[in-house]
Order: sequence, then C-alpha cells, then structure tokens
Amino acid sequence: MAITVVGSVAFDSIETPAGRRERCLGGAATYFSLSASFFTDVRVIAVVGEDFGRRQEAVFQARDIDTRGIEHTAGKSFFWEGSYLENLNEAKTHNTELNVFAAFEPKIPAAYGDSEYLFLANIDPVLQRRVREAMPDVKLVAGDTMNYWIKDHRPALLEVLKGLDVLLINDTETKMLAGNNNLVQAARAVLAMGPRTLVVKHGEYGATAFFSNSSFAPKGEGAEPHPFRAPALPLEEVVDPTGAGDSFAGGFFGYLASQPELTPAAFRRAMFYGSVMGSFACERFGTERLQQLSRQEIGERFSLFRELTHLD
Amino acid sequence: MAITVVGSVAFDSIETPAGRRERCLGGAATYFSLSASFFTDVRVIAVVGEDFGRRQEAVFQARDIDTRGIEHTAGKSFFWEGSYLENLNEAKTHNTELNVFAAFEPKIPAAYGDSEYLFLANIDPVLQRRVREAMPDVKLVAGDTMNYWIKDHRPALLEVLKGLDVLLINDTETKMLAGNNNLVQAARAVLAMGPRTLVVKHGEYGATAFFSNSSFAPKGEGAEPHPFRAPALPLEEVVDPTGAGDSFAGGFFGYLASQPELTPAAFRRAMFYGSVMGSFACERFGTERLQQLSRQEIGERFSLFRELTHLD
Repeated sequence: MAITVVGSVAFDSIETPAGRRERCLGGAATYFSLSASFFTDVRVIAVVGEDFGRRQEAVFQARDIDTRGIEHTAGKSFFWEGSYLENLNEAKTHNTELNVFAAFEPKIPAAYGDSEYLFLANIDPVLQRRVREAMPDVKLVAGDTMNYWIKDHRPALLEVLKGLDVLLINDTETKMLAGNNNLVQAARAVLAMGPRTLVVKHGEYGATAFFSNSSFAPKGEGAEPHPFRAPALPLEEVVDPTGAGDSFAGGFFGYLASQPELTPAAFRRAMFYGSVMGSFACERFGTERLQQLSRQEIGERFSLFRELTHLD
Repeated sequence: MAITVVGSVAFDSIETPAGRRERCLGGAATYFSLSASFFTDVRVIAVVGEDFGRRQEAVFQARDIDTRGIEHTAGKSFFWEGSYLENLNEAKTHNTELNVFAAFEPKIPAAYGDSEYLFLANIDPVLQRRVREAMPDVKLVAGDTMNYWIKDHRPALLEVLKGLDVLLINDTETKMLAGNNNLVQAARAVLAMGPRTLVVKHGEYGATAFFSNSSFAPKGEGAEPHPFRAPALPLEEVVDPTGAGDSFAGGFFGYLASQPELTPAAFRRAMFYGSVMGSFACERFGTERLQQLSRQEIGERFSLFRELTHLD
C-alpha cells in the first residue's frame, strides 16, 4: 500500500572523517523515500528551487518514487551544511538556509488521495498537522521531529502528537520532550501525549519500541505492554551518518506498509528493517548507498542482523 | 566448575539522583562474586583492612562464596567515593583511597588450586599477570581493566592481554586501548593484542562480542567471524549503576563455568545472563539487589530479555 511522505528535499554539504561532499542531494523526505521505495510505493510532498534539476529528479525516478507532489518554485532549495569531525554520532551544523522552504505550503496531489500510509518527516509541526488533517482517512500515520521544534514550538508539536500512531525520535529527543532523563519514564510520558507507539532510535545500538494501547504491542501482557528492542550491529564503514534516522524510518514504515496485516510480528520485523536501512545509509556519502542498493542486499543484511543478535 | 576471582573488595560512598549511601560494601571482586555465585562456585582473592568485619563477611557467606583467599591486614580497606548526579552512565570520582590495597600481594590458597575458571577483575595488570601465571592450568581466563591502566600502565597491560581468553571492557575503554574511534576497527585491533574474544559492554544497550580464532564464534563463517550482540532492555529503576559491569562479568562467566561445553550457543546465553545480572545490580544501591536476588527472578528476566528482543 502506498505511503505519502511530506518533508524536506534539500542539498547538503557534509564533512566527515572520511572526506567532504558539496551540495549532494539530501533532506529527510529524500532519505525516507529512497529507503521505503524498496518495500512499497512512495509519493513525496516537498518544495524545491531552481537548483533541483533533472539529475536530482532522476534519483527519485530510478526508484519509481512519485514526485508529482514536489513543487518547483523560484529560488534555491533548502540547504544544510554540517560536519561530524569530532563525533560521528552527532552532526555539528555550520549553516542552514531555508530558502524556498521558508514559504512551504504543502499541496497534496489528487493522485495521492488513496494513500493508506502517511509519514510526517521532520518539518514545522504546523505543516505536519495541516497535511495530517488533509488526509483524514489514512490507515496509519507516523512522524518524526527534532530538538528545535521540541524546544521552541511545543504547543504546535503537541497538537501533532495527538494524531500520531507512531512517533520515531532518538534518545535525546525523547528525554527532552518528556523532561525526564530515564528513558523508560520519558517514553511513558511521551506516549501519554498521544502516539500509540514510540520508536526510540539508538543509532548503532538499534532501536526500542514502547507501546501504550497499540495493536503492535506483544500479546498477553499486563496493563502496560513491555517494550521491544531491535538491535543493530556495529559497522566498520561509517562514512556519513547523515540521513540514517530517516532511512530507518523509511525501512520501518515501508516494510509495515507492504504487509497485509499490522501484527506484532510484522512490527518487529519492521524494526529490524529500519535498522538494516539505517546501517546501509551510513556506508557512503549522502544517498549514494541507497541509490546503489538491491533488495537482495537488504534481505541478506536482515538475515545477518537476525542471526547475529539471536540466542537460538 | 569453580571460578577463582582476584580483585578489589572495598567500601564505596555513592551519590545518585535516588539518594546517597555511605561506606557500603563494594569492589569489583565483590560484585563479580555475588553475581557469579548464582551459577557456580566462586572463590575470592583480595585484601581487606580492619573495617571489614563479620557483617561484610556474612554477605559472601550467604552466597556460599569461598573467602579463604581474602587476606585481612592492619589498616583500612580500599575506599571509593563517587557520584552519578549529572549522568547515570558515568561515575564522577571524588575520592579514591587505596589503603591496604596499595601493598596487595595476591596469595592463592591451596584449596583454590583446582579452579578451572579464572577471572582477573580490574586491578594492577602486574598483579593480574602474577595470578595468571600462578594458575597455568585453568581452562578459561577472562579479565577486565580500566582507562587508568590503559593510559599509564600499557606495557604491563599488554602482557596480561596476551594470556586472556576473554577480555570484557566497555566502549570507551575499547576505543582508548586501540586508539581508534570506530568500534569494529578498535575491536579488531584489541583482538590482535591477544584475547580470543572481546566482549564490549554498552550499558543499557547490552553488549557485543567480537571473535578472533575462538571456539565461541558462530560456525560456518569466513576468515573473520561476525560479532554477536546481546541486547538488554532499558530499566525504569536505575538507582545506582555502581558494579553493573562487574555484575555483567559475573553473570557471563558464572554461566559459562556452569556449562558442560563451551559452545557458541552457551556463549550467547552467557552474554544474555551478563546483561540480566547487570540490570539487577542497578536496581538498588551497592550490592543490595544482588543480595536479595533469587535464581527464579534471574530466570524470569532472562526469558523477558529473550522474548522482547527476539523477532520470532
């Protein structure tokens, strides 16, 4: 079943210990789409400037991603410049230019209307909410956010959280959103804000899902379902962690959307596919690895993650 | 089969967000012994001062731990004072008094001579090596170390590493020992120093084992065996993380020593038992939780960790 994703399509200049890339294709919606496209149909809503040309368009087309919702306007695309020189786990932002993104008004093509899955990538919660309300009939809504919105746009963000089935954020964001440094307590506080499921991404350590009243929760539990953790394996080749979290979300949500039923077992596999896609994203600069990836490689890494984290 | 452990038996004053305890029983050998005692016979080699009395001795006796190798001398026992107020994952040391530990000369009781397992807890590598050489016939030797020995006593530490079957250290220590910030590359460098297996402890994220030429490695692999990761679950109740790493080592090594054969499957279960024991240690101050623990509770948490991190 098709996913509609709204978020940024951007250019990134990135420096890591492995080298530097100038103005490569980036943005949360880009990483999410490429990753999810290995599992299901993906439709993008975003805005780009005149610097987004055929070469960038071709990256989406090569993965059969529907780009009719990418609006082209005068000006330059969103631009981000950052580095990971001291710490591969945390980007240092040197420059952010919103450009055409500053006046972004998401427009949903009629052809996207039958999407059953909606992903609200990390953008202004006011826009996330607008898209959510324009697509009231979707089967499942997941979303992401970041420290900036948590700190300075809290009321708008809280409105978005009320309408989410799944929120995917990292450890720091979870603790910041809850104002609590214990992950379990923070997760419970975030679930009380609305999402039925919270997926906390731990980078190279995998991810943990916390459940309130959710069909994804393991069966036969007490009043509060136990969490589920999908481990990942450490990578030798961390070239560029940009987009790993969005690629996780794409693998996770793409796999779910490809399943006939949203069972706890499907949810667990989706968490593993999220880790798998996040790990691939780190292996080359920008979207390079996702562009060159095959479904077979994904299956092989899934088997590896499964085998090498399982007891039996 | 019996384990002999050499290390510190000490008093700790600890402050965490949950409160403060003055001079509670601590030390790496104490946590290790209590934890391992749920799986097999344990014999301790250490030194204590006149402040170590019947009340402390009773903690070991309640778990049937052999304390004939704990030497009693004039003076005060090793004392450590630390806090975890800003970060529960990292202790801030306020005071360390070596006291009787400064002149520690490990003496191995004749009755310990048939121990088949040896654990070298975190002490001066010169002493670790001396004990290792005095027990040449053990079946398996594991050890721990810390940043202080890695930085300032490297040549002595490298001699110890040559004789280890399993080294258990954390992420930071692994990267520091190897001088490499990528965990996979750092692990390979550490394995080249001698240990056949390296277990890297990740705190609440579990632990990862890396293998060189080891009988523990998964079968049917290529030239370099894949790592194995045992996840843990995040805890709501982190009262005091002191001793969690030593309790992990005790659960891991205690379980191995209780097994008839050292197979890859036994090794994987041992990693899970390590995570289980580390998680219990954090639930109360000092050794309180390990003192009140039952084998049944251990089994239940093992099942929980297994169930809630497994795909199928």
